[in-house]
Amino acid sequence: MKNKSVPEIWDAIKRGDWRKPTSGIAPGFAQTNVVILPKEDAFDFLLFCIRNEQPCPIIDVTDPGQTAPPQAGPQADIRYHVPKYRIYRYGELEKEVESIEDIYKDDMVTFLIGCSFTFEEALMQVGIPVRHIEEGRNVPMYITNIETSPAGIFSGPMVVSMRPMTPKQAEEAARITAGFRKAHGAPVHIGDPTKIGIEDIQKVDFGDAPVIKEGEIPVFWACGVTPQMALKKAKPELVITHSPGHMFITSITEEEIRNAHLD
Amino acid sequence: MKNKSVPEIWDAIKRGDWRKPTSGIAPGFAQTNVVILPKEDAFDFLLFCIRNEQPCPIIDVTDPGQTAPPQAGPQADIRYHVPKYRIYRYGELEKEVESIEDIYKDDMVTFLIGCSFTFEEALMQVGIPVRHIEEGRNVPMYITNIETSPAGIFSGPMVVSMRPMTPKQAEEAARITAGFRKAHGAPVHIGDPTKIGIEDIQKVDFGDAPVIKEGEIPVFWACGVTPQMALKKAKPELVITHSPGHMFITSITEEEIRNAHLD
Repeated sequence: MKNKSVPEIWDAIKRGDWRKPTSGIAPGFAQTNVVILPKEDAFDFLLFCIRNEQPCPIIDVTDPGQTAPPQAGPQADIRYHVPKYRIYRYGELEKEVESIEDIYKDDMVTFLIGCSFTFEEALMQVGIPVRHIEEGRNVPMYITNIETSPAGIFSGPMVVSMRPMTPKQAEEAARITAGFRKAHGAPVHIGDPTKIGIEDIQKVDFGDAPVIKEGEIPVFWACGVTPQMALKKAKPELVITHSPGHMFITSITEEEIRNAHLD
Repeated sequence: MKNKSVPEIWDAIKRGDWRKPTSGIAPGFAQTNVVILPKEDAFDFLLFCIRNEQPCPIIDVTDPGQTAPPQAGPQADIRYHVPKYRIYRYGELEKEVESIEDIYKDDMVTFLIGCSFTFEEALMQVGIPVRHIEEGRNVPMYITNIETSPAGIFSGPMVVSMRPMTPKQAEEAARITAGFRKAHGAPVHIGDPTKIGIEDIQKVDFGDAPVIKEGEIPVFWACGVTPQMALKKAKPELVITHSPGHMFITSITEEEIRNAHLD
């Protein structure tokens, strides 16, 4: 898949030739979290995203029934171009599917939410270690005591991801990621985990436990699992998401995401 | 009113002691455009604002029925704290009122949209002339050939405001206003008006004709009249706005607006 264009990758996914995680494919192009909701709940969710831009940076939102994300993939079809979807009913996972053709309805709104893949690439380019990638593990994630700003039926704690590094690297990483407003932005916290309600850094809530080397401190970024937790808590009748790691590949370059505005 | 606090000004407005334009009162605090819509149309309008951030920078959006803007005036009541309101039905102005107590319903969503007062202050502070203020006139505004990104029922051309200055001042003004993402940001165009569909710079669509001095060029910024035009075109059953110039005074400082994110 490495040398394929984004439209070629979409085609391969639709044909069923790619049902694996999307990490590392289409290098240089932004990947996003996917949330699809009936219009009835879409206003509240959009407001939740706007009020909580760091954990929920909006890359694109469709009109109801618009299957092609106008900014992030005007030639794409959200019903077929994600490798694996999850269907939730009243907050519970019902099933995992490879197409949502039969479930998707004309009143549904698709939200594409930025993800940290984008800034990790930029950190590695300047030699800042991204430990979980080095170790072939999933990023460690934690539920914090930082409350999101609620909106309608949506509320809950902020979830953060953590990358250990030296204080000097943390400073540079903070400066670089501040430019990625559409990919979680600057760290929400650097240092003492207990300050944000994390009692034991080895006890993750999601992902894999971290490997922290001597002289390193934990650096925490707002995480895209935050809206997923808010969705689970709100228990709307129907939510469709991507399966973890099986992201939507956009036709927006990572360079465009850096400092990007939606318009 | 000059030495009153923002809550004192809100009280004065509610009592009926201030029904005039708000320009110059509560210096240092951001003022906003106001759009109030039933929830039914709120998703489309919110999406329109997100897709067109330069003309429609969102300062705050309430939940349905939430009378206090959570970020911009948690102690305010949007039903009483605007000096004059306009009621539109199916796109036509029905009347101008001093309170919306009897029209406001629990399903209504309030949008507060940034305005250029905020960056004009910053320009004047560094000695860049803001001609229409110097001349005691209204800012010249034009309908352009730049199309907004449509969203649901909302669409239409971008409206711009214009401030003449020297090329050197224009460069500095562009740099300064780029930091005001929540107050229309950088200019959308500098120089030749015909490039954005303005045939005669003296023929304004809104406001007063400009006074352009020798050696000056026109500098155009996205304008908050853009969403008003989109609202008129969409003709929703009911829209409540502020009366022109009679803005909502927020408890957010202009300093906070500079480079501000909503969360």
